[in-house]
Amino acid sequence: MTERKEFRNLAPPEEAHAAIDSLDLAPGPEHVPLEDARGRVLAERIDADLDVPGFDRGSMDGYAVRARDTFGADEADPVELDYVGAVHAGAEPDVTVEPGTCAEISTGAVMPDGADAVVMVERTEERDDGGSAGTDTPDRVAIRTSVAPGDNVMVAGADIAAGARALGPGTRLTPREIGLLSALGVDEVPVRGKPKVGIISTGDELVRPGEPLDSDRGQIYDVNSTTIATGVEEAGGEPVLYPHAGDDYAEMERLLTRAADECDLVLSSGSTSASAVDVIYRVIEDRGELLLHGVAVKPGKPMLIGRLERSTESTRTGASAYVGLPGYPVSALTIFRTFVAPAIREAAGQPDPRTATITGEMGVQERYSEGRMRLMPVGLLEREDRPPLVYPVDKGSGATTSLVEADGVVTVDPDTEVLDEGEAVDVTLFSPDVRPPTLLGVGEDDPALNRLLDRVERPRYLPVGSREGLRRLRDGLPDVAVTAGPVDRDVDSVELGRWSREWGLVVPAGNPADVTGVADLVDDDLRFVNRTTDSGLRTSLGNEVAALADARDVDRHALVEAVEGFDLTVRAFESPARRVASGDADVGLGLRATAEKLGLGFVSLGTQDIVVRANPDRVDTAGVAGLEDALDDVGAVVDELPGYED
Amino acid sequence: MTERKEFRNLAPPEEAHAAIDSLDLAPGPEHVPLEDARGRVLAERIDADLDVPGFDRGSMDGYAVRARDTFGADEADPVELDYVGAVHAGAEPDVTVEPGTCAEISTGAVMPDGADAVVMVERTEERDDGGSAGTDTPDRVAIRTSVAPGDNVMVAGADIAAGARALGPGTRLTPREIGLLSALGVDEVPVRGKPKVGIISTGDELVRPGEPLDSDRGQIYDVNSTTIATGVEEAGGEPVLYPHAGDDYAEMERLLTRAADECDLVLSSGSTSASAVDVIYRVIEDRGELLLHGVAVKPGKPMLIGRLERSTESTRTGASAYVGLPGYPVSALTIFRTFVAPAIREAAGQPDPRTATITGEMGVQERYSEGRMRLMPVGLLEREDRPPLVYPVDKGSGATTSLVEADGVVTVDPDTEVLDEGEAVDVTLFSPDVRPPTLLGVGEDDPALNRLLDRVERPRYLPVGSREGLRRLRDGLPDVAVTAGPVDRDVDSVELGRWSREWGLVVPAGNPADVTGVADLVDDDLRFVNRTTDSGLRTSLGNEVAALADARDVDRHALVEAVEGFDLTVRAFESPARRVASGDADVGLGLRATAEKLGLGFVSLGTQDIVVRANPDRVDTAGVAGLEDALDDVGAVVDELPGYED
Repeated sequence: MTERKEFRNLAPPEEAHAAIDSLDLAPGPEHVPLEDARGRVLAERIDADLDVPGFDRGSMDGYAVRARDTFGADEADPVELDYVGAVHAGAEPDVTVEPGTCAEISTGAVMPDGADAVVMVERTEERDDGGSAGTDTPDRVAIRTSVAPGDNVMVAGADIAAGARALGPGTRLTPREIGLLSALGVDEVPVRGKPKVGIISTGDELVRPGEPLDSDRGQIYDVNSTTIATGVEEAGGEPVLYPHAGDDYAEMERLLTRAADECDLVLSSGSTSASAVDVIYRVIEDRGELLLHGVAVKPGKPMLIGRLERSTESTRTGASAYVGLPGYPVSALTIFRTFVAPAIREAAGQPDPRTATITGEMGVQERYSEGRMRLMPVGLLEREDRPPLVYPVDKGSGATTSLVEADGVVTVDPDTEVLDEGEAVDVTLFSPDVRPPTLLGVGEDDPALNRLLDRVERPRYLPVGSREGLRRLRDGLPDVAVTAGPVDRDVDSVELGRWSREWGLVVPAGNPADVTGVADLVDDDLRFVNRTTDSGLRTSLGNEVAALADARDVDRHALVEAVEGFDLTVRAFESPARRVASGDADVGLGLRATAEKLGLGFVSLGTQDIVVRANPDRVDTAGVAGLEDALDDVGAVVDELPGYED
Repeated sequence: MTERKEFRNLAPPEEAHAAIDSLDLAPGPEHVPLEDARGRVLAERIDADLDVPGFDRGSMDGYAVRARDTFGADEADPVELDYVGAVHAGAEPDVTVEPGTCAEISTGAVMPDGADAVVMVERTEERDDGGSAGTDTPDRVAIRTSVAPGDNVMVAGADIAAGARALGPGTRLTPREIGLLSALGVDEVPVRGKPKVGIISTGDELVRPGEPLDSDRGQIYDVNSTTIATGVEEAGGEPVLYPHAGDDYAEMERLLTRAADECDLVLSSGSTSASAVDVIYRVIEDRGELLLHGVAVKPGKPMLIGRLERSTESTRTGASAYVGLPGYPVSALTIFRTFVAPAIREAAGQPDPRTATITGEMGVQERYSEGRMRLMPVGLLEREDRPPLVYPVDKGSGATTSLVEADGVVTVDPDTEVLDEGEAVDVTLFSPDVRPPTLLGVGEDDPALNRLLDRVERPRYLPVGSREGLRRLRDGLPDVAVTAGPVDRDVDSVELGRWSREWGLVVPAGNPADVTGVADLVDDDLRFVNRTTDSGLRTSLGNEVAALADARDVDRHALVEAVEGFDLTVRAFESPARRVASGDADVGLGLRATAEKLGLGFVSLGTQDIVVRANPDRVDTAGVAGLEDALDDVGAVVDELPGYED
């Protein structure tokens, strides 16, 4: 086994922040067209270089007058002025308002020479004495009010005047600022550049989404590259994805140098393999400078911070900044958000987001005693009139589903060993937009349930199986548990609804092995794929096996030992059928609905009821009510699924 | 004057919301590449169609073993297993772990046949007995711990399994969801379409930013188009800008129909002219359906809501939605945000933003009695340990600067006639990102001050002139007032700093009229441009005129009457000079710094002091402290400005 770098002296989190702060990843300013400027940050102050408006401007539809001519006029005793013409918006006035005269003016038009006020049209009346017969203009206009000089006139520069400070450097451009820049005629804006962030995923097993996957070779889709790239965008940077790197030194060196040449910051990410991390470590030490390795934060142990020298081919000067992220997706994103995103925002000039922190109550007890600060991903559950319920989500499993099952992070002090159930904790939401789910469900996975959940606003459902679901319902965390088939545990709950599904054995199309039931699994040489013991399908299958054992008067264990793959269990209702479809198995435990969906054969073994059970304390919550509403339509949903009945 | 539509029966705001809700502006779903999916909203549920991982996966670097072989092993009494080979991530295993053997495995690699657990490398030791001499692989491995089946193995589908519900419809895609989609190999995502929103600005006077402006013809830059377009983007729509429309019926009809053909929603915006609104009104009535005109909201009186029929050339079916917005920018944006943006978000499937509402205290008394609900734009000022100060910003002036001087809106009930100073009010921020300024300054405009403000975080400065600034400081609203020249009002304040600037008469380059002082303005036939009486420059000029009057023993008024343009006042320090530069004036009141910047001549009349005065109650705030820090560097700032001294 390769020699591996041990991270024995972990740096405190503040040192990691300081090390990243010491890196220079700010690009130079650039100019963007105004229409692309939303969300960007001004690189410099913008002073007005013209008066707005650029002329004295009528601000009402009405008549431009000399104010002095209207003194004393009122409804009872109007003043009559001679009509000399009209001025429209966007046209140069071709009339002059001499004493005793007026000119029609529309809002926004240039005040004609001589006039110093506008009387609004509602306080005037056109008068004709025949002089303008044949035209649609009046001879005179009765003015029924007096106005002062400047009334209903916006003088040149009154809005913003040449030389005035319009917007300061660092201003983030929203519709309002863009409106002001438009008024100033600005169509190109000097903004802070977006730091270019190169992302290198390490791991020979990684495949880009959309490309074919060879599971036999242990390939998996690359999660960290796209996740971190999206996070870079969100922080105001411009992500650049590089090809995956294996743990070959020369290849890694070439890739890291190329990324350093082209970017302000290079992030490596994706590998959970110590040897790949080790290769990166050596490249950074050889080709740059390692400022820090390993941070006393869970999950920050494998974090690297340093600089990477650029090659002579680079158009950039100096070294590129470098940060190595942990491999597990939730860990990578958490460390990215905590340490790297603030530096990207700083470099882009973007203000820190108004980080939403909410206080919730622990829904379970949580123990921890590693003596490192811990950034604990947690899920939330909204409750009425009470703080939201908080529960830990990812325990280092590296699961990508944890990404969407967590809503934020609780920072747990190194000294804290226990967080008690009911204890108040502060949760830093992943973004201020995060809205906790309104419904937390656990239990069996089922395609009808998946469709029903589409009708609930912000549900979260953890398909942990019937048995585990009931256990969690008993412990009080979820709102509902969904079970399939017979249950062996009596949990206090309120039934919200039920339907049935046909289950049995999924076989290749045409049932080439002529499977008729469980006995064939025992007696014939068939490769079987089972579900986990938490699944209600597995419980129903267990009952069939027990019945066969009774009938043959043999031990149940003897039967299952005879089934090749009885212990080969997979997690969700489609997985066994997919193994049959791919030819990796001859028979899979599953549903008629799945078999028909995948064009496979099906041997029915019966039906089982799916029951939706609510936590008695939560039957009145908005989320549970939403699920109840959806259950009113369960008939329509199960109609679409073969073998289903309500 | 054209007949104009009167809006006598204003609809209550709820009716306006209902009318917009009745319009259909949701486009169909579309598919976007995963890398462009950030911020988009899923159009449909995504179920996993593969197991993740697709194989049983080692989750540690170490040795793959049969768990049974390790039973009883510990540090004191390790078990030795024969080394049969290695499995690396991304490669298909070429070894089988028979009883009594083990295989090296790296994190993420496929579990070799036979093995059911992984022992982490830290709990092992390689042993050689010469059998593998000449290779770098060991003969045997000592296992110092016992493991259970499944330890350090992530079974196929354990993360997410085929058929499981991954993400529900309506989910907004953030880095986390994009991570999960990556794991599923999804590279194209079905998302809700962005509603296409056509924007038609009306007004012959409008010019697009970047194009030349003819102020003599009353042209102004179009503000609403870009502002509203940016707001449309922010709400999740796709803006389409159409050419400006005048108030010609046929042109307006053609433009509105074209926009309806191409868009889901058409917004007209920009005109303050009643006649243009009237033309639109008639087009909508003739070519569509008007659902509502005029809403009992200030500023919603001229709002229109309806539908526009499409022509036979359109590829879209049915009618387009239509909303007419008020003309003043702040009004247009306020109505857009209140009524239109929610409908665009709904159509795009975007969740409502977590609208930030904060409670503040009125800094001034505000009266209102129009019997309509009022959406009052307000500015905010952060205060330590107290709610922010709230003050009304736009009073219907139509100023574009109000766009950036307001931070949010207070909804004032139709029955409310007075909001008292100190009264608590709820402010709906323009966006949750809005951060109130830390410093509110008022007073003289000055280029050195503009530069100093660049060094303060989030300052807001209203250049209302020295005199008005002092008045406001006395009333207690701002943190600081900045005055220039002699002041005639004694206001309790703390001086934070001062510098001096040279002022005088700005003349064309080379001073062709040979101006030497104020006397030339009086005696010669020169077109002069003055500053407003609020300006400290004007006060200094007044003192010069008074001195000349004394010297000549004439009345001051007689002198100023003799100056052509003495009453032609403009608002900011550069404006008069710019009139000289454009040839519209012979002499302007101004600064040496401005004259040199614009390449003009300058006749010095003296220097005046700029004094920064703090509100005595606020000297300890962060904003004032920031300005004080900036003032420490005033020397460096004034060094760059001709005629300035600290």
